[in-house]
Amino acid sequence: MSVAEAEKVLSEYGTGRKEKKNGRSESGEKPEEKKDLNERRIFLVGIGMGGPGQLTGAAISCIRESQAVFGAPRMLESVKAYASHHQLIGEYVPKAVISWLKCHPEIMRAAVVYSGDTGFYSGASGLEAYISERREKGEEGFETEIIPGIPTVSYMASRLKREWQNVLLLSSHGRECRIEEELERMEEKNAVFLLSGGKNGVNELCRRLQMAEVRRGDVYTVFVGERLSYEDERIRSGRPGELKELKFAPLSAVWVEKECRRNKG
Amino acid sequence: MSVAEAEKVLSEYGTGRKEKKNGRSESGEKPEEKKDLNERRIFLVGIGMGGPGQLTGAAISCIRESQAVFGAPRMLESVKAYASHHQLIGEYVPKAVISWLKCHPEIMRAAVVYSGDTGFYSGASGLEAYISERREKGEEGFETEIIPGIPTVSYMASRLKREWQNVLLLSSHGRECRIEEELERMEEKNAVFLLSGGKNGVNELCRRLQMAEVRRGDVYTVFVGERLSYEDERIRSGRPGELKELKFAPLSAVWVEKECRRNKG
Repeated sequence: MSVAEAEKVLSEYGTGRKEKKNGRSESGEKPEEKKDLNERRIFLVGIGMGGPGQLTGAAISCIRESQAVFGAPRMLESVKAYASHHQLIGEYVPKAVISWLKCHPEIMRAAVVYSGDTGFYSGASGLEAYISERREKGEEGFETEIIPGIPTVSYMASRLKREWQNVLLLSSHGRECRIEEELERMEEKNAVFLLSGGKNGVNELCRRLQMAEVRRGDVYTVFVGERLSYEDERIRSGRPGELKELKFAPLSAVWVEKECRRNKG
Repeated sequence: MSVAEAEKVLSEYGTGRKEKKNGRSESGEKPEEKKDLNERRIFLVGIGMGGPGQLTGAAISCIRESQAVFGAPRMLESVKAYASHHQLIGEYVPKAVISWLKCHPEIMRAAVVYSGDTGFYSGASGLEAYISERREKGEEGFETEIIPGIPTVSYMASRLKREWQNVLLLSSHGRECRIEEELERMEEKNAVFLLSGGKNGVNELCRRLQMAEVRRGDVYTVFVGERLSYEDERIRSGRPGELKELKFAPLSAVWVEKECRRNKG
């Protein structure tokens, strides 16, 4: 990104929800006041783990302010307490969200809610990119504002009473997981964290970790978090071989540590 | 960490605030019910960026529930709306917090509030470790519960409309910053993020980035976020040479990107 592009991003951002704020500026210049109440706005809202007490005040206020709230059904369930008079739409694919809004020009404020944080393997990036592309093509634009949520790694670390600043962050949720390669890097990291999705996600991962234990002479402890922050939250731990046959929720948080680090100097 | 140690952590955790929850278990066993209302409890609470709307409901509820709230003065300022009937104590050094609590045995619930998230270069780790060491020595123990907050990198990414899953995360806040070495790794990352603390933190960093530009033939764009989430939030951007003489807040969030990535294949 060039400085010019960067300035464009920041100047667009300056027109955002924070128009009430002062002092936003580029290298000391006075901030531009570009308030347009007629502009249509989409809030991309991270709702954290989804359980009670996980939303920030800013997230709640954006949902309340919106006339329509989009998201995957489980996400909508988490926020419906704040959106009772709204239209709740079980859509989150960018094209579907925008098509719906094009058919409903009366909606001036909409929110799309996402699990976890908006910046960590989040669908928010796809919607932001889609809207940005449309804008570049000169099609009807929407202002966007991104409201961060508690990332899964923060929540999982808090439950395990760990830090995550030196943890290798991966995602195998809908992506190819190259866990074998990543284990090479564990020498310089304390742990590996990943969001594991899909059928048999954790089981397959544990099978591969067990093979890696044999091949590398390592011993791993795996923590699997399911339904984090909900009443039925569960965190199980064990060696890969112990967990590989257990059943896990389709979307689980996995934290892998290597034993005996203390003996390796 | 061994599986036995891991189980110990999780069984302690099982005695925590979430005692209302079911289904917490180790490899399928029934969770242990160890509820002790007489136990003294410390909440280690991440408050995010500190501005309005940045706390989660869980953070607010732990602060409300506490009879004493500890933290750096700026942090206490952020939460005092939820703690008006509490003792607010401008301490956060582990030894001082515990000494104070030892002198006030009537306090059964206390909170210590930390900027950002509790797991990312947070003082929460030091307090957790201190309490855990005391417990191992058989000294008076406190149960702890960690409540995550929005990490600075999530907030900064949301403002810049970026993802952070492929960003190199550093901290030079009170630590030696080896930015020159880290730039080597930018080839495989999209950006570098760091919390810059201390006098001249950002200026010194920009001077070193400018030298690195010459030496490496790179062009960097630097974004500096100050007073994030407050009314007077400011995000400035520019080349290192443009920013190196400007004044910045003592604690700033810095995001560095390399230009022309798109031309490098």
